[in-house]
Amino acid sequence: MKKKQALIAVNGELRGSKEEYRALFEQKDLTIIAVDGGLLLLEELDLFPHLILGDLDSLPQDKVEYYQEKGVEILPYPVEKDETDTELALDYCKRKAYTELFLIGARGGRIDQELANIFLLEYAWRQGLDLIIKEPGLEIGLINKNKKFYNHKDHYFSLVPLSERIQGVSLQGFQYPLADATLLRYKTRGISNKFVEASAEVIVDEGIALYIIQEKV
Amino acid sequence: MKKKQALIAVNGELRGSKEEYRALFEQKDLTIIAVDGGLLLLEELDLFPHLILGDLDSLPQDKVEYYQEKGVEILPYPVEKDETDTELALDYCKRKAYTELFLIGARGGRIDQELANIFLLEYAWRQGLDLIIKEPGLEIGLINKNKKFYNHKDHYFSLVPLSERIQGVSLQGFQYPLADATLLRYKTRGISNKFVEASAEVIVDEGIALYIIQEKV
Repeated sequence: MKKKQALIAVNGELRGSKEEYRALFEQKDLTIIAVDGGLLLLEELDLFPHLILGDLDSLPQDKVEYYQEKGVEILPYPVEKDETDTELALDYCKRKAYTELFLIGARGGRIDQELANIFLLEYAWRQGLDLIIKEPGLEIGLINKNKKFYNHKDHYFSLVPLSERIQGVSLQGFQYPLADATLLRYKTRGISNKFVEASAEVIVDEGIALYIIQEKV
Repeated sequence: MKKKQALIAVNGELRGSKEEYRALFEQKDLTIIAVDGGLLLLEELDLFPHLILGDLDSLPQDKVEYYQEKGVEILPYPVEKDETDTELALDYCKRKAYTELFLIGARGGRIDQELANIFLLEYAWRQGLDLIIKEPGLEIGLINKNKKFYNHKDHYFSLVPLSERIQGVSLQGFQYPLADATLLRYKTRGISNKFVEASAEVIVDEGIALYIIQEKV
């Protein structure tokens, strides 16, 4: 069965050209969700939203009305709430049975919000959602059990444990391979590896980790 | 007993003027440590290092020799190693009985290195070191048990659990106070609080969390 895919735009920085961003997603059949000020980022990319969601405190009222008149669904939330707008967007995607989610604009702006966006990868995973932070030359996702990667030769690869330790870690196809290793969250051993083969595999028997793929330094 | 303090400069971005950075540290009696390319950052701030440490692969050889001739201690490490240069700098500080450490240049550059720098707060804490990431308008540290804050009225405050959950969390002096609450790493509940009093207190009975104080948005 085909996965239901959504692109979620949040209020951070663009890290590449419009063409580069559009190339990342052109093969995909995406529902496009603007999270509050993420709408401005979509406008820069000439991407039209299907839904605008959040407390809308970063958007001028007339802009929201413009999209409402164009038939775009608006889902407002109160400003004072326990969740960030991005978390509410993930809850929406869960309710609507989207399973494969791409987050853009997750970086830049306040570092606490950037960290919150990155830690939401764990929230998504616990909800059964496959969420990836994506920008030109960068991908951040979550690994539990195993994951295969293709066509990333010479890109940087880092593994950052979120649980205090990850165990039974094996890395194949990398400059620094590992076999049945244990990595600790507070040590930096998984940082700055590199893909050396066209296909590579990561196995994590116990625990969860972020993976980060970077094309450029 | 007076704490032995060190300033550790790593190879990220400056996020403020020379004057702002120098004002942060002018009252302190600091040993200044350049971690590899962090030396260039110290040069921009007109701060002279006592020690240059790391694999030195980001520095021209003649620059290293210049400082060596000036009597600066050079501590080289191999390029291929399990630790990042910043982790090695913390190990050095532990050996030399420094206990209060300030990290500058921790942000910018590659996101995996930025995350590794932030997660090193936990490494430092486990070593009995008090490490703070510091730049004009920003402070990132680790909280376990309790911490008091003074003179941060109107600044943003975020609490980001590193352990899967933090329990017995109380916040006093903040816009959104908490009493004996539980926060989860993968939820965003601790993000975007604000100091509303001149003095504030955070208590975390169980678990560890990052705290982030930001002056500007």
